Amino acid sequence: MNQDYIQPDNWSIIEEGFDADRVKSSESLFSIGNGAMGQRANFEEQYTGPTFQGSYIAGVYYPDKTRVGWWKNGYPEYFAKVLNAPNWIGINVVINGEQLDLNTCVAITNFRRELNMKEGWLSRTFTATLQNKLEVEVKTTRFLSLDLDEVGAINYQVTPLNGDATIKFQPYLDSGITNEDTNWDDQFWDTLKVTTENDKAFIEAKTMKTGFHTCTFMQASVYLENKKQEQNPEVYQQENAITFTYSLSVAKGQTASVVKFGGYTVDRNHDKTELVSAAKTALLTASEKGFAQLLEAQKQAWDAIWKMSDITIDGDVKAQQGIRFNIFQLNQTYLGKDSSLNIGPKGFTGEKYGGSTYWDTEAYCIPFYMATKDQNVARNLLKYRYNHLEKAIENAEKLGFKNGAALYPMVTMNGEECHNEWEITFEEIHRNGAIAFAIFNYYRYTGDYSYIPEMGLEVLIGIARFWQQRATFSTDKNQYVILGVTGPNEYENNINNNFYTNYLAKWCIDYALDNIEKVKEGHHDDYLRITGKTKITHEELHAWQKVADNMYFPYSEKHQVYLQQDGFLDKELITVADLPKVDRPINQKWSWDRILRSPYIKQADVLQGFYFFEDQFSTEELKRHFDFYEPFTVHESSLSPCVHSIQAAKLDQMDQAYTFYLRTSRLDLDDYNKEVEEGLHITSMAGTWMSIVEGYGGMRIKNDMLNFEPRIPKEWDAYSFKVNFRDQILKVNVSQSETTFELEGNTDLNIIVNNNPLTISPNNLVKA
Amino acid sequence: MNQDYIQPDNWSIIEEGFDADRVKSSESLFSIGNGAMGQRANFEEQYTGPTFQGSYIAGVYYPDKTRVGWWKNGYPEYFAKVLNAPNWIGINVVINGEQLDLNTCVAITNFRRELNMKEGWLSRTFTATLQNKLEVEVKTTRFLSLDLDEVGAINYQVTPLNGDATIKFQPYLDSGITNEDTNWDDQFWDTLKVTTENDKAFIEAKTMKTGFHTCTFMQASVYLENKKQEQNPEVYQQENAITFTYSLSVAKGQTASVVKFGGYTVDRNHDKTELVSAAKTALLTASEKGFAQLLEAQKQAWDAIWKMSDITIDGDVKAQQGIRFNIFQLNQTYLGKDSSLNIGPKGFTGEKYGGSTYWDTEAYCIPFYMATKDQNVARNLLKYRYNHLEKAIENAEKLGFKNGAALYPMVTMNGEECHNEWEITFEEIHRNGAIAFAIFNYYRYTGDYSYIPEMGLEVLIGIARFWQQRATFSTDKNQYVILGVTGPNEYENNINNNFYTNYLAKWCIDYALDNIEKVKEGHHDDYLRITGKTKITHEELHAWQKVADNMYFPYSEKHQVYLQQDGFLDKELITVADLPKVDRPINQKWSWDRILRSPYIKQADVLQGFYFFEDQFSTEELKRHFDFYEPFTVHESSLSPCVHSIQAAKLDQMDQAYTFYLRTSRLDLDDYNKEVEEGLHITSMAGTWMSIVEGYGGMRIKNDMLNFEPRIPKEWDAYSFKVNFRDQILKVNVSQSETTFELEGNTDLNIIVNNNPLTISPNNLVKA
Repeated sequence: MNQDYIQPDNWSIIEEGFDADRVKSSESLFSIGNGAMGQRANFEEQYTGPTFQGSYIAGVYYPDKTRVGWWKNGYPEYFAKVLNAPNWIGINVVINGEQLDLNTCVAITNFRRELNMKEGWLSRTFTATLQNKLEVEVKTTRFLSLDLDEVGAINYQVTPLNGDATIKFQPYLDSGITNEDTNWDDQFWDTLKVTTENDKAFIEAKTMKTGFHTCTFMQASVYLENKKQEQNPEVYQQENAITFTYSLSVAKGQTASVVKFGGYTVDRNHDKTELVSAAKTALLTASEKGFAQLLEAQKQAWDAIWKMSDITIDGDVKAQQGIRFNIFQLNQTYLGKDSSLNIGPKGFTGEKYGGSTYWDTEAYCIPFYMATKDQNVARNLLKYRYNHLEKAIENAEKLGFKNGAALYPMVTMNGEECHNEWEITFEEIHRNGAIAFAIFNYYRYTGDYSYIPEMGLEVLIGIARFWQQRATFSTDKNQYVILGVTGPNEYENNINNNFYTNYLAKWCIDYALDNIEKVKEGHHDDYLRITGKTKITHEELHAWQKVADNMYFPYSEKHQVYLQQDGFLDKELITVADLPKVDRPINQKWSWDRILRSPYIKQADVLQGFYFFEDQFSTEELKRHFDFYEPFTVHESSLSPCVHSIQAAKLDQMDQAYTFYLRTSRLDLDDYNKEVEEGLHITSMAGTWMSIVEGYGGMRIKNDMLNFEPRIPKEWDAYSFKVNFRDQILKVNVSQSETTFELEGNTDLNIIVNNNPLTISPNNLVKA
Repeated sequence: MNQDYIQPDNWSIIEEGFDADRVKSSESLFSIGNGAMGQRANFEEQYTGPTFQGSYIAGVYYPDKTRVGWWKNGYPEYFAKVLNAPNWIGINVVINGEQLDLNTCVAITNFRRELNMKEGWLSRTFTATLQNKLEVEVKTTRFLSLDLDEVGAINYQVTPLNGDATIKFQPYLDSGITNEDTNWDDQFWDTLKVTTENDKAFIEAKTMKTGFHTCTFMQASVYLENKKQEQNPEVYQQENAITFTYSLSVAKGQTASVVKFGGYTVDRNHDKTELVSAAKTALLTASEKGFAQLLEAQKQAWDAIWKMSDITIDGDVKAQQGIRFNIFQLNQTYLGKDSSLNIGPKGFTGEKYGGSTYWDTEAYCIPFYMATKDQNVARNLLKYRYNHLEKAIENAEKLGFKNGAALYPMVTMNGEECHNEWEITFEEIHRNGAIAFAIFNYYRYTGDYSYIPEMGLEVLIGIARFWQQRATFSTDKNQYVILGVTGPNEYENNINNNFYTNYLAKWCIDYALDNIEKVKEGHHDDYLRITGKTKITHEELHAWQKVADNMYFPYSEKHQVYLQQDGFLDKELITVADLPKVDRPINQKWSWDRILRSPYIKQADVLQGFYFFEDQFSTEELKRHFDFYEPFTVHESSLSPCVHSIQAAKLDQMDQAYTFYLRTSRLDLDDYNKEVEEGLHITSMAGTWMSIVEGYGGMRIKNDMLNFEPRIPKEWDAYSFKVNFRDQILKVNVSQSETTFELEGNTDLNIIVNNNPLTISPNNLVKA
């Protein structure tokens, strides 16, 4: 834990007292988003202290020219940067001629920030003493509407406390913004047109290279003592900015306020010639409803989300706050409405990593979205990859594969690869397996087979082709080997026979073969369409089968464990516990070659395989592998502790499970990795959810049925979660003494609890 | 072979006919240098066609900020760029108001370029028809003086053929130059002062960041029919340039000419406040001698070089031209006068690769310089590394090594690492072994042990410490392994137990231990000084010994060969002969991961070990390994064919030896790698020399004696070479019928020829 200033609270993230050193951290933690856009918790008024400004539009990115590895072939030409979009939140506040600026005030008292997760809004209150001695109380409330997802709203209130004041509110738009993450200090936005219409302003701009057209817009109105002041603003127009100035004479104790609506219309959703008119429509809707009504709708929308996805924890406020923060941020990032969007690793909270889609989506996020949303959301995430199949085939072709073999990108915005380290881009091919696994997982959970004949089978065929071509027959071993890969443990590069990768490759081929048979039998029209399109032959399927049946897995007879890769036992096997503290985290302390030849595991690798394919191993095998690999795991990826937490719970090593749980659930709130300023770890938040539901709750799907093996950490009194299982919502309550089930639905649900069958009838509390 | 426009000639490189498409290629091939500076064969007069301008000063570089791999620790912050220096050769020629420019002329006839290697000068003649219809004959001669190594000289002659002409000669200096190779388009030079004094001009400039101060200077005088014209030039001074204009009225058939002396003084050799006065001194010396006398001195200086280093080949002009081109370029690049300089991979012919020092120097160049120069030259090259020992220790510390372990950089200008790919910078550690081997090789050849107690032993200790710390004890193998390396074959990255590296590591430790004993016995004062300084303990030496005695070498019982690395036999072993032509060169056609998992070998790797340590293996073993690895070797490094040529000759596979020889000797002249425009492959030229002397001549040093096993390709009538062995010069003549030896010296020399002892007396032709 590297910070603990966030106040424990069941439903809110709260900061009390102003500290300039915490501004960037809080800008990340108090981020707000609505799936279509999002932003860091930057101040509306001028702030001249250190800050990381960020406002992001889903699906809008910049292909930053890359230089890494240009002397090797097959690299992408660019790295897709998450793009800081024009600022619409800005409101300069000039009080008796002095700019309100928390960096230059004489004193700040009663500073309080709250991110209300229950209702989906951010507020800030403080009392500032200006250099001109005037004391003012400020209160701001801001949210990004879930209902009108192009619109955000701000209510900014100022009350002079010790004298009268002339207050100028200067709401503005600014497209002269920059990115922190840029290779060449390129400009990312080209401002096309700045226009106004009464109390509204519009900046049309397009992104360089990608040419995304956007209109950033605002409308403002000012109030004195809640009474609207009809005032034509003074307009100051610049090349990349437009500012309205409203001037109010405010008596001591009176409250002046500005209500600002703003946001973006984008040519992803509108014709680019109609962005301004779409903006006007959005503003009209917003202003007709008004701030209060929009906020009320926001509360209701969040209420609906929580109804399906809340997890409660009794007796541990920090754990409660942690899990809700994770669920809240996931919902702010992705709501599943648009199958061309995905879940970026930093969501709308920072620029780092670039790209929007990693294997995180399939390996970590889909279970969360399947269980807490309508199943269409997960289907949309699968469809996203189906829509990128052609590009995955092209990507594989660039690397020398043929005949429709598909290699999905490591990082992408639009289906093209945009990562650029050979050891990752070219060799971290296990991602392809996670994409197939997600199809299996979706069907296992939802029972919706229709996705496979409609779309999934083509993806499975492309992936199976890749694995068959990627495997090499070793005459020395008389088996198929997979050479030169990077597994989920990125602290190994260019290794041979990564157990996880080999296992997944074999599984993918077997699963594709199974489904070709199934579709042939059950969906013959689709079968004919797909075989016609993919030109699958018997010889090819036979070649697949040969690879799957003769795959090599490195194994140690001595330790009775599968080896992470060939040669793992040649390493100096000193456990993490014996590693001096000064050497941690090794990714900050050691050179890369030293990390590579060490036994240290960045994130679950063999164990990730045991997590995916738990059914295929005995609990004894799991225990042996967990006990072998856990001591070498440094968890320097945010995606690691959750898998270990789930497996520790399964093995009834509850203290360990709880340690890992804390690390994943409050990773950002307590800033375990000393980097929260850069943004939040969005995708690993889904792993936190899994730690509770799959770890403590022991939820699994077996034979089309929900299975539970509930456990509870000794630190908690009780916890509950809800899962949407095939259109019925099951609420599971686990206390130290008992587990109860409640079903919101209309048909009996047969489940298995601790290996015993149990039937839950709708709206009937059942004790297990 | 990708080009064949160079005219075959025993002593010159000749191009006939002007072709704009060949300009950049010829700029490389006709490069001139004198060890202190060098330049591409750019035209003196304006040329508006495609050109790659380059003039380089030894030891002057720019630390270009690097971006590769910034997310991993231990990387250098910059990549040292070879720096294009201010232009001093420029002479604009305006004839009847029209700029002479081969790109805009109406016609060019009789174009001929000659690089005379025997005498060390470059000339160019042509007849140009200008747009104004005037026909002029132009003849230029240029050289960089070996005697006055800060000075170059140009004689530029113009004869109007079909009418009178007003000819303006505009010799200039220009420091507003740029680099082709730059990461960020930074400016590399800061011009400080532009001054003139009569017919002389000076630009003082310093390099950005490194702050090398230089004075670029010129002096010009004009002639009509060889008669000096006393004329004060018109001076045009700019911020980064200065131009003199001389105007001559030239009658049809008369020859007007300008003689220009120019060059650089550098604060590597002078106090930075005295660069202009040093330039004046240089110009005074040059102008007192005059162009003709300087040229005569140039011929004599080259004559002296050839006396010691020439190789003759009878009956094969192209082979003769090739080997002389190689010897000539090596001498243009490095003459061994300055132990702070080294042999850059492109010498003074281009910018590519950056840095000046690679393991090429120790592995390839030292044998050439030992045998063709005074032994101090090789000693200076060794001393260069001794002077960098502290930096090599710092470099190792950055990577986590301690206690004086030294890792020499992969690429350097000043002892600091400046390469930036982890798989090379951090893992291509075999370079450290070549540096120790060069010490052994120097002593073996020269018999000068004094270097070891004076300097070499400290280097050997630092290197042995590195290897002992870098090895890992594998409990699984019960031996020491070396994990995560890149061998000489850079088409494998992060491999375990590269045979070459492991073998070299063991050898280095053994050799260091031997020499500690030897110095202890024979140079006790040095021993006390060195052990005091290095704090070597018995325990430490014991730890070294354990590693050396228990080193693991991967071996295949089936093939009876050492394996290049663990797992080599898992690859799909398709020979290069069976690889489709369209896939070659694989480094241009395949993605990096595909190259890595293929069996293809970029350059000799196991065989490089057999080359270094030939005595430690039987000829049968060599044959087995050669036959196993050669078929997988693609020779996509210029350093590869020479080793294979030497070994093929040793194995009496003369056709193969000849094929490899041709490839190495005319690599640039025939542009085998389609990249000669970027500059020449200087360091591999030493490998060409080795192919003849060690390959065909079979020269080895055994027991302090020269050994020969001469062979001759059937394509040649005869060949000869000279070697300076311990201050006597032995000339070896090999014809199809016999081998003869002649000694320039004063003591009998006992040699071994085909295993028979032979005594050569001075100045007596001996037939073997």
